[in-house]
Amino acid sequence: MKSAQFLVELGRNSYPVQVGRGLLEDIGESARDAGLSAGRCAVITDANVGRLYATPVLKNLQDHGFRPQLVEIAPGEVSKSLATLDWVYHRLADTELDRDSAIFALGGGVVGDLAGFAAATYLRGLPLVQMPTSMVAQVDSALGGKTAVNLDRAKNLIGAFYQPRLVLVDVVMLASLPEREFREGLAEVIKYGAIMDAPLIEWLEEQMPAILARDLDPLSELVERSLRHKAVVVSRDEREGGLRKILNFGHTLGHALEASTSFGNYLHGEAVAIGMSAAARLSTRHCGLRLEDAERLRRLLTAAGLGTELPKGWLSGEFISALRLDKKRQGDSLEFVLLDRLGHALTRKLSFDQIIEVT
Amino acid sequence: MKSAQFLVELGRNSYPVQVGRGLLEDIGESARDAGLSAGRCAVITDANVGRLYATPVLKNLQDHGFRPQLVEIAPGEVSKSLATLDWVYHRLADTELDRDSAIFALGGGVVGDLAGFAAATYLRGLPLVQMPTSMVAQVDSALGGKTAVNLDRAKNLIGAFYQPRLVLVDVVMLASLPEREFREGLAEVIKYGAIMDAPLIEWLEEQMPAILARDLDPLSELVERSLRHKAVVVSRDEREGGLRKILNFGHTLGHALEASTSFGNYLHGEAVAIGMSAAARLSTRHCGLRLEDAERLRRLLTAAGLGTELPKGWLSGEFISALRLDKKRQGDSLEFVLLDRLGHALTRKLSFDQIIEVT
Repeated sequence: MKSAQFLVELGRNSYPVQVGRGLLEDIGESARDAGLSAGRCAVITDANVGRLYATPVLKNLQDHGFRPQLVEIAPGEVSKSLATLDWVYHRLADTELDRDSAIFALGGGVVGDLAGFAAATYLRGLPLVQMPTSMVAQVDSALGGKTAVNLDRAKNLIGAFYQPRLVLVDVVMLASLPEREFREGLAEVIKYGAIMDAPLIEWLEEQMPAILARDLDPLSELVERSLRHKAVVVSRDEREGGLRKILNFGHTLGHALEASTSFGNYLHGEAVAIGMSAAARLSTRHCGLRLEDAERLRRLLTAAGLGTELPKGWLSGEFISALRLDKKRQGDSLEFVLLDRLGHALTRKLSFDQIIEVT
Repeated sequence: MKSAQFLVELGRNSYPVQVGRGLLEDIGESARDAGLSAGRCAVITDANVGRLYATPVLKNLQDHGFRPQLVEIAPGEVSKSLATLDWVYHRLADTELDRDSAIFALGGGVVGDLAGFAAATYLRGLPLVQMPTSMVAQVDSALGGKTAVNLDRAKNLIGAFYQPRLVLVDVVMLASLPEREFREGLAEVIKYGAIMDAPLIEWLEEQMPAILARDLDPLSELVERSLRHKAVVVSRDEREGGLRKILNFGHTLGHALEASTSFGNYLHGEAVAIGMSAAARLSTRHCGLRLEDAERLRRLLTAAGLGTELPKGWLSGEFISALRLDKKRQGDSLEFVLLDRLGHALTRKLSFDQIIEVT
């Protein structure tokens, strides 16, 4: 079994990240190695992921002395709500967890964010293990400690910074993902190329056919490479005071697009792809990015099967009001992430008028 | 105007505590001095406190460049719920706060806990100012960064450690508190004597008549002395990994008593007084506290007008199940705070059976 392990360096909050094949079936041992106490714990997942992976995970945890309670939420962004959170809290109370009891977040971004926030706030904080199963979660969201739920239209408005004790990424799961969910995750990988790793852009251009064929070699490499980049950024700026902001490239417009369509029309990565494409256009106007590089980024997104155009009618009242709820708003402007060249990002204050000029 | 200022030392999360008379009317200047940005902000209070103090607070904030939005919740423990939290989040979203916008928690323990948790989680964290108005909040809960809401019967089950940027205590408010709310706060002051300051017990025995007559000199002294004790404990143990646990003296049985009577029959401090009295009895049995000292503590609580006896029928199923939901539970026991002498506390693991023996 090929596998890599590295550390997210955050002083006494440092934690290991494991990337490899078949790791899911060793979760119990990995959790014990990471210092978690056996005994009562909760595995939070959604019904789709649970059907595929709950049985082996529960079994392996039991084999290592854990007494896991399965907590299954409905799949989809609709579950990232205060109502579902309330329901999850009640399940945790039923299970009589104590402060040493671990929460295992087994699922994609929704499960990771919701279960992460539940772990951050139940009993003022329980040990958390992220076991991402979607592409977006594996290459990005499972690492870094951002947890959140949505408030109606406003994505991730409620949340906490709360670092996990272990991130365990089993890339074998990527092979069986539905096509659309697989492709959306590539948006976050391309993001790492755009903001901090120009050679990754070139590598992705070459490897895209093998990646889309779900060859596990390039998949393992792209997951590990993305997470190592994220680990470096998070280590330097845990709470998004500075450097970490560049990880929001494409996300400002992406979030507003998701929120203004009630989270139904676009998967997160699909919205981010459109947001990155628009942010690249803004970069040519405000930050000196070469037009050909903006075009190259757009082509790579297209090659990954991702849309790059804002939909007709995107400039709705809902879109604007979602933009105004962005966490990065400062009065009538936003701190916006732009590229001055492929592989290098910076932030600029843009007014709402400047942002919505991109058509 | 007499006033004292000291620091809660928590590295880069350190913050000032001001105790004095008439400080409420200088909130704007104090907030600016503490480094908070003017502009949009929210003042969270309850209808009772708001009627008395909202106008001068809003006025003074406006005079210093803040644009405060008043958010008024219903008075009482019933508001420390996820439903009220949800409602508060929506008011904050309506106000279009950004990450620099401050939350001012103007009220007693309920407002401080709820507004503190909202500040901890809205946009993943906004600057928080605690302006405690009740006795319990002034001598204890406003300092230390514990924030929480209740989950049905279980008190403070959901929460976060989140330090304020400023604690401002105007002792003049104590003069007009209803008798019962004033007296319940004395339970927390007596607690500081019991766990770490034997001379405070003696001072309280002498000063009790002047205190109950609301003489502002002894009131200022007891608030400052209690908060300085708490600041020392919190500085050494922010997240209750060790030393801070002693602050829970009387609180384990107190919480269970509150929760099992649906938070209606006892004010927090009243339940804690009964809890301390029971914990003192447990201390004589398990920890060598002299019977006469347990009795002395009970007499002081009585002198403060507080009950010291568990009510008839206290050993209900609700009480036991509330005890089992305690955050300090470890399997079938609890880490329980006991006294080996007046002025010195330690923790011992007690089984549920040992705990409920005290009759």
